[in-house]
Amino acid sequence: MALTRDDALALDARDPLASFRERFVIADPELLYLDGNSLGRLPAGTRERLNAAMDEWGSELVTGWHDWIDLPTRVGDALAAGVLGARPGEVLVADSTTVNLYKLACAALDAYSLSAQRALVTDTDNFPTDRYVLEGIAQQRGLQLRLFDSADPLLGPQVSDLEPLLQDGAVALIVLSHVNYRSGAVADMKALTDLARRYDAHIVWDLSHSAGAVPVRLRECGVELAVGCTYKYLNSGPGGTAYLYVAEELQSGLRTPVWGWFGQAQQFEMERPYEPMEGIGRFLAGTPPILGLAAVEAGVAVTAEAGIDAIREKSVAQTELMIALHDEWLAPLGFELGSPRDAARRGSHVALRHEDAWRICRALIERAKVVPDFRGPDSVRLGIAPLYTSFADVWDAMDRLRGLVERGEHRELDATRARVT
Amino acid sequence: MALTRDDALALDARDPLASFRERFVIADPELLYLDGNSLGRLPAGTRERLNAAMDEWGSELVTGWHDWIDLPTRVGDALAAGVLGARPGEVLVADSTTVNLYKLACAALDAYSLSAQRALVTDTDNFPTDRYVLEGIAQQRGLQLRLFDSADPLLGPQVSDLEPLLQDGAVALIVLSHVNYRSGAVADMKALTDLARRYDAHIVWDLSHSAGAVPVRLRECGVELAVGCTYKYLNSGPGGTAYLYVAEELQSGLRTPVWGWFGQAQQFEMERPYEPMEGIGRFLAGTPPILGLAAVEAGVAVTAEAGIDAIREKSVAQTELMIALHDEWLAPLGFELGSPRDAARRGSHVALRHEDAWRICRALIERAKVVPDFRGPDSVRLGIAPLYTSFADVWDAMDRLRGLVERGEHRELDATRARVT
Repeated sequence: MALTRDDALALDARDPLASFRERFVIADPELLYLDGNSLGRLPAGTRERLNAAMDEWGSELVTGWHDWIDLPTRVGDALAAGVLGARPGEVLVADSTTVNLYKLACAALDAYSLSAQRALVTDTDNFPTDRYVLEGIAQQRGLQLRLFDSADPLLGPQVSDLEPLLQDGAVALIVLSHVNYRSGAVADMKALTDLARRYDAHIVWDLSHSAGAVPVRLRECGVELAVGCTYKYLNSGPGGTAYLYVAEELQSGLRTPVWGWFGQAQQFEMERPYEPMEGIGRFLAGTPPILGLAAVEAGVAVTAEAGIDAIREKSVAQTELMIALHDEWLAPLGFELGSPRDAARRGSHVALRHEDAWRICRALIERAKVVPDFRGPDSVRLGIAPLYTSFADVWDAMDRLRGLVERGEHRELDATRARVT
Repeated sequence: MALTRDDALALDARDPLASFRERFVIADPELLYLDGNSLGRLPAGTRERLNAAMDEWGSELVTGWHDWIDLPTRVGDALAAGVLGARPGEVLVADSTTVNLYKLACAALDAYSLSAQRALVTDTDNFPTDRYVLEGIAQQRGLQLRLFDSADPLLGPQVSDLEPLLQDGAVALIVLSHVNYRSGAVADMKALTDLARRYDAHIVWDLSHSAGAVPVRLRECGVELAVGCTYKYLNSGPGGTAYLYVAEELQSGLRTPVWGWFGQAQQFEMERPYEPMEGIGRFLAGTPPILGLAAVEAGVAVTAEAGIDAIREKSVAQTELMIALHDEWLAPLGFELGSPRDAARRGSHVALRHEDAWRICRALIERAKVVPDFRGPDSVRLGIAPLYTSFADVWDAMDRLRGLVERGEHRELDATRARVT
């Protein structure tokens, strides 16, 4: 027997993170927003921080750079400590996730690839941009890109999926997502990292769908390289500046392919030749986007203040609630769970599969004031952002979803598929 | 006989652009800001536009993407029409100048380089990041980077400097700045572009130090490829999103080395393999930074409204005034003009050379409330941003500079060289 709405309200009443909801702009309290895993809400502090950054620009003008110049590493340090389980000086906030992945993948190949015959590897179900970046690099360098299927797509890449590929010694670089963007499966970062190391291969982890909601322990897991975005659980705004991580001990051996003046030692000497600066700053390219960095700083601050462990605890309780309500209400309506049942293997979103998922998503948005995300081929993806998602939100969204499908409202919509971002 | 301050005030009184000064935040009216060519001032409209963008984010949430998704090309079109002399669909606002230069240089080499023996070329006095990007690409691809000196450093690269390099047919790609960051020399874009074409070589133009102050006529000059930044004369804020230009007819033949999901045709199908979209959007990589793009949009709007020709006319009058005052007041104090005297060959900044330039710059900032820029080895660089620089600003700044050097105030400063950004 699933929980009642009163039970959900009672859970909210004793939620230690409940007050964080007030730290975000909730323009329409009736709207149930379950897509914070795609674009996080606007923190009230971000509005203040960005206006302060504009004031700095307006009054300090170019001399503001004395302070701004360290922002990529300063915000990186905040991310490292509060979110990523990394050391100071290991994280840099810069560019987009795609560009960062390109930079680190090229850097690793240049440094480690002993033979041009060694392949690039990722899973078929990895996020498109990760696959595309590798596809491009493979084509440019005449390398092979090997895409593998996970034996259990719901659980994502396992050691047993990857080991056969590694055994012939022909793998140079692997890109894996910590949390799968469709199923929400959490990869075993430590086990997979250890596996790659045994075979002299290197993993770049994409943390986009975990950081800020699922604990990431880069140092503890011995991770070498990682990238991620900040506009999901870290609430930095649409297209917010991304980050990259390079383990301290590897930094001096790696060089970005994009040699720019912000990665140059003695930047303001303006003299050639290029010599990368010491430390994580060598992975900078052009002038850092200060307004974007300010937004990341504000977003990360809220997450760090709440604490990742408390966030994770609430996230698990909320995805559990979602699954319990799915089992009781939605399974009889033709839904099937598209995410791991084991909470330890599940991130902060849940995929509910249904043959009419696309129309259901549209109907939720247009008629029920619930914002999910459609993910092909057949998933209604519901994200939990514990900083502002309440238990009542979860209960109400599932209730509206149930009612809508029971009444067949989604069938009234045109089945023509248009873009749902 | 140079102009008096009253003459300068009279020029301001009949300046058709005078009212544009009110469109910018002037936090301290006593401060004479002559570094808008490094970081432009904050337009009042940008504060509004960014707050509106935050409101959109806060209220539209992920559905805001229906509108945001076109922003890189929409702002690109505004830049194309209002500033760059390009057609709709030829300009994309994305990433940093450095990353954009890397993308276009790699794309051109992949498409056009017939032989790995053909060199990359730029001038020794080009902006550091341009040289570094080429240095990196040369190293990665086993190409030669040939740096040439302009016969007259003050005038920058001329046809006669470049032609000998091209005559042996061994040049693939050339990167040139439209306006030199030190001397302010304007390159002859048309003549150099024609020259390169005759020798089957390709130029990527860097417009960072011209766009927004000096007319740029990309189509008229037959330019193939260009990049530039927006945080100087286009007032998009520190590290504002940059842009790239690819002539319409070349787009389908070029591919960025960074294959990302925003450059993919049918982006939301999420399916492999990568296939670049039609048009300029194929040069996108990751998720576009919406707040950054909004700031570019607001900055470009002010410039486009004023009109580049009016801006140029005022800029020329102001650099002429600066040079006249230099000749009368500063030359006797040991200064030497480091910029072209011919206005047609000069951009919107003036370099004043002096053996003590670095201390003079510091003294101007710390004691005279004038913000110049030091550029090694020996230049006080004074920038004109006609949208908000008044004739009185120019007169007063030159007067304060004269007084400070006459009194020898700069000599009281520690000569130790620290960073001046």
